[in-house]
Amino acid sequence: MKPATPPRRPVIEGIRPQVDCGRFPAKAAIGDDVAVEADAFVDGHDLLVCELRSQGPGQDGWATVPMTSVGNDHWRGTFRVEQLGRYRFCVRAGVDGYATWRRNLQAWAGAGEPLRAELLVGSQLLGEAASRARAEDQQALTAAASALAAAEDLTSPGAGGNATVGDLVHDEVLAGLARQYRPPGDDTTSAPSCAVVVEPRRARFSTWYELFPRSASPVPGRQGTLADVVDRLDYLDRLGIDVLYLPPVHPIGRAGRKGLDGSTTAGPGDPGSPWAIGSEAGGHTAVDPELGTLADLDTLVRAAGDRGISVALDMAFQCSPDHPWVAQHPEWFRHRPDGTIRYAENPPKRYQDIYPLDFGTDAWWELWCALLDVVRFWIGHGITTFRVDNPHTKPFAFWEWLIATVKEDHPETIFLAEAFTRPAVMHRLAKAGFSQSYTYFAWRTTKWELETYMADLHEVASFFRPNFWPNTPDILTEQLQTGGTATFVARLVLAATLAASYGVYGPAFELQEHVARAAGSEEYAGSEKYAVRHWDLDRPDSLAGLMARVNEIRHRHPALQRDDTLRFHQTDNDHLIAYSKRSGDDLVLVVVNLDPRYRQSGWVDLSSLDAPRDPASGTIDVHDLVTDARFRWEGAQSFVILDPATVPAHVLAVGPPDPDEGLPA
Amino acid sequence: MKPATPPRRPVIEGIRPQVDCGRFPAKAAIGDDVAVEADAFVDGHDLLVCELRSQGPGQDGWATVPMTSVGNDHWRGTFRVEQLGRYRFCVRAGVDGYATWRRNLQAWAGAGEPLRAELLVGSQLLGEAASRARAEDQQALTAAASALAAAEDLTSPGAGGNATVGDLVHDEVLAGLARQYRPPGDDTTSAPSCAVVVEPRRARFSTWYELFPRSASPVPGRQGTLADVVDRLDYLDRLGIDVLYLPPVHPIGRAGRKGLDGSTTAGPGDPGSPWAIGSEAGGHTAVDPELGTLADLDTLVRAAGDRGISVALDMAFQCSPDHPWVAQHPEWFRHRPDGTIRYAENPPKRYQDIYPLDFGTDAWWELWCALLDVVRFWIGHGITTFRVDNPHTKPFAFWEWLIATVKEDHPETIFLAEAFTRPAVMHRLAKAGFSQSYTYFAWRTTKWELETYMADLHEVASFFRPNFWPNTPDILTEQLQTGGTATFVARLVLAATLAASYGVYGPAFELQEHVARAAGSEEYAGSEKYAVRHWDLDRPDSLAGLMARVNEIRHRHPALQRDDTLRFHQTDNDHLIAYSKRSGDDLVLVVVNLDPRYRQSGWVDLSSLDAPRDPASGTIDVHDLVTDARFRWEGAQSFVILDPATVPAHVLAVGPPDPDEGLPA
Repeated sequence: MKPATPPRRPVIEGIRPQVDCGRFPAKAAIGDDVAVEADAFVDGHDLLVCELRSQGPGQDGWATVPMTSVGNDHWRGTFRVEQLGRYRFCVRAGVDGYATWRRNLQAWAGAGEPLRAELLVGSQLLGEAASRARAEDQQALTAAASALAAAEDLTSPGAGGNATVGDLVHDEVLAGLARQYRPPGDDTTSAPSCAVVVEPRRARFSTWYELFPRSASPVPGRQGTLADVVDRLDYLDRLGIDVLYLPPVHPIGRAGRKGLDGSTTAGPGDPGSPWAIGSEAGGHTAVDPELGTLADLDTLVRAAGDRGISVALDMAFQCSPDHPWVAQHPEWFRHRPDGTIRYAENPPKRYQDIYPLDFGTDAWWELWCALLDVVRFWIGHGITTFRVDNPHTKPFAFWEWLIATVKEDHPETIFLAEAFTRPAVMHRLAKAGFSQSYTYFAWRTTKWELETYMADLHEVASFFRPNFWPNTPDILTEQLQTGGTATFVARLVLAATLAASYGVYGPAFELQEHVARAAGSEEYAGSEKYAVRHWDLDRPDSLAGLMARVNEIRHRHPALQRDDTLRFHQTDNDHLIAYSKRSGDDLVLVVVNLDPRYRQSGWVDLSSLDAPRDPASGTIDVHDLVTDARFRWEGAQSFVILDPATVPAHVLAVGPPDPDEGLPA
Repeated sequence: MKPATPPRRPVIEGIRPQVDCGRFPAKAAIGDDVAVEADAFVDGHDLLVCELRSQGPGQDGWATVPMTSVGNDHWRGTFRVEQLGRYRFCVRAGVDGYATWRRNLQAWAGAGEPLRAELLVGSQLLGEAASRARAEDQQALTAAASALAAAEDLTSPGAGGNATVGDLVHDEVLAGLARQYRPPGDDTTSAPSCAVVVEPRRARFSTWYELFPRSASPVPGRQGTLADVVDRLDYLDRLGIDVLYLPPVHPIGRAGRKGLDGSTTAGPGDPGSPWAIGSEAGGHTAVDPELGTLADLDTLVRAAGDRGISVALDMAFQCSPDHPWVAQHPEWFRHRPDGTIRYAENPPKRYQDIYPLDFGTDAWWELWCALLDVVRFWIGHGITTFRVDNPHTKPFAFWEWLIATVKEDHPETIFLAEAFTRPAVMHRLAKAGFSQSYTYFAWRTTKWELETYMADLHEVASFFRPNFWPNTPDILTEQLQTGGTATFVARLVLAATLAASYGVYGPAFELQEHVARAAGSEEYAGSEKYAVRHWDLDRPDSLAGLMARVNEIRHRHPALQRDDTLRFHQTDNDHLIAYSKRSGDDLVLVVVNLDPRYRQSGWVDLSSLDAPRDPASGTIDVHDLVTDARFRWEGAQSFVILDPATVPAHVLAVGPPDPDEGLPA
């Protein structure tokens, strides 16, 4: 059967970034240069020209830039994204007839072959291009076509009497015109377009801090409020925080309320888990009266915004048995044959203070819309960052719809997926639209584990943006329980420099809280999830100063604001991990001693660092941004000693010293 | 906006085999068990059931088999292909509500939770399944539903008075029925179907031999004919050949005929290149009168077939200037402005005896149909195997159409792509439908090169079947020129055991022809491409005996008839390469000394071999199938010595000795 369209000769394959064959968009942040790669080739020996076309949200036309051949049929190009929302891009490949002719002519000339017939071919190509050209380009093409037609045979273009022909053959402007006006049709292929969602810069680079407002009171014995959180903002600003994430701020149910350390019997003074959302005081769009009012939250959002801090709310789509929806929409919950509603459960665990929403309900569309309304309500109150609780227990299709629908009107929103589950599930949530994702970082402790895990993350980097948390209210790792200050510092530096986005649960983190509920448990003793705590921020062992310094370094060094340039460097000691990141000329090398007990030393291989060396001496200048020490390194390796008793990490700016940078004297 | 369809909860991703997102079919051979893998998962904690559905060519319904969970959301299943042509398969995933309930019930029971409400849930599930069940299955489901509904609360199913409930919970037949009659709808997802083209077994496993009929005369000085090739068949049968490939058998043009060693001036006695197809005696559907008649070819095809040998013709879609098409269809050729037709060229090389066909012609459809008619003509004469010359100089779309169209009526056809070019181009030809492909094997000589290359091939194994040729009329590698007999033997063993399909250009190969036209050239001196040669098959240095033995081993050992189980094993000597292949219980280990000059010895690591060991002694029996020597190996490593002066390779059957196998006494 005759094909419906005449055959297109060039082939385009393997376009990247492309997620699941284009089923999902890739991700970028505003201001990024999106790097597109493709394999493009054609039968035979013809030369190709490849173009990258891109179209921003709401734009009609396509912007076109040339792609560069990097060998082996592989092509690269970039386009800059300056607008939030969904871009489309596609790759076009066409035969460059004139360039092919030019290359062949030079080969024939070099072999001493007669060229007369070939010169006429070139003349014809240019004449045809002239017929397609805009008026201002016609003359140059026509003149060149005539010159080639009139030329004598020649065996060496550019030599002797045929200088004109030689000049024409080497004329790049002419070659550009011939390419511009090359024939359309069979010899040009366009690959189907792919999508990139462009999100705010903070989707790529952000420093998070989680705190419980009810523990934010500076006065022991008084429960904290949102107003106390406003008072905490200057502290967070000094720490260098970008995103302040609050666990749910909604009314907490009474039914099935959990007591201290999650016990099933709450005492009268127990405040309950903030994730048991909803009471007679309201549900997901209400503020817990114990914390303040909606106006207090508005005040907090504004005051944080004044300091460049975004407030992130927790979207935990589940209900306390006291949530108004339980009575208003019983059909949104799963009833058992005995009439009871099923609790949230992960057998044999059961959460008696929580009913899950039943996404399998016949009324799924009404439920979806109600949840969308919740998000839109908070956007109306200036919240654009959402930490989503347990997204993996709700359908993937729901998230894909919700996030896409929200982003239609609010492309500035950022969604962080709190899913600690199997890789395929976490990846699918990211594909469905989550801007950032929690990770396994907390449990990756050895050099081999960290290096392997970063390689795994690199594989999914087009759609999965890691956010590294050394701790959360649910996760006090065994390492933090037992490793002492050196471990807290090492984990802080690793999180802050391995990933462009990281966060801590504070003040537990900077105050080195490390006592678990029980041996073998990762739950904090006296967990804030079930109790009000008081934190003394002025304690001398607070890591707040170091954290502020690390975050200042992150803000100052673009290399630490991206994940795609991470490179590990060999060391001859498995306790020492070394890696670098680069952005333009900014190059940061990090070396961390992973052993919290002993001083470790070893050689770091610099051969893969590609560091700028002094042209005369061949030395490399490095500046430890944490301690302000400066070193000059020689040779292909550098000897490093790191002591857990002091700062067990180097964060080194590599290259000519920056006179403006350094610790205040 | 409300989604058009209600959300499906399970997700299916990463289905394999799948070529370029399903743009092309994967490949299988008849009798294969096609292994399908996919990631499938669902939100929350529900258990899934996954099915693999397949549909053979011309079938209406789908055959369904269960897939097996192999952990981390990964599922596997297989379907056997018993018919030539295009199969479709797809993966379905659904929530297994009863299995989920059963698992949860057991978890609650283990935790001592009350179960009454849960038993009613189970009863309801089974009751609903009964309502969907066929009559013969209804009773069992209804009875079990009633038993669960009537059961007292229990904390340990199976214990005490609730033995019935315990029995029900552990009843696998009941679980199977509940799964079979689970609810349709939202909780089941079907991934789009993918295709597999099923080809003859010889597409996967074949031994090729190329010879020039005009050199097949047993009498020096007389030019060979097709009748001489018939006389050569017994020899080829003894060698163990499956496919006899003949260079073009068509009339050879006079215009621009090449002389000895490809010179541009042919003497009157020079026969010309068989690839300069067409003269006044006919074109692509004629037989060169010098070789015989069409009837002679028919005779050869029949006589070969009687011995189980397929004759492969060379499809070289190009024309001598004397080809009838040049006058009949001038529009199929590319004319320059001076009226001349462009020669085949790869500047600065020019082939004055060949005009390429112009696939860019406006008459492309007529040209495509004429070439299809050529293939169909030869199929009409019993030819089903085609070696295609330089397919990469014709459009990929043409091959995709041609091969698919031919296979619609003749799924038994096999096409071998003769493209030695960049990887992306070779891969695309395979995707477009070629059954087998020439490879870079001839130039992969060191252990590292061979291991790396086999890994590259493994990446594309779903669509690219390698055919390994140590030599061709175009390729006399430097290694064969200089390495002597040990190199010929090593390359034979490597080709025959690394790849399930391999071939040689003979008798040049078995007679160890190794003199090049010039230093640095890979052309044979006095190449058969331009001259008639006489070969003395009875020469004492012929490798025919060894080749026969190697091919006999290949036919006897299914492990050597597939490429997917290849595994390399470490040796402590870089001159020794060791690898194994397996098929069921058949396990073959090959060790080759890559050094043609010196004896090499070393330890082969057996830890990754997974060899059957004697239960009492822990030893491994191995049988050298080439030399008939038998060894018993102990420990995790085996010491090997291979001497280029004898046979520089072991081909070892691993496992209990086969009393039927061995060299004749």
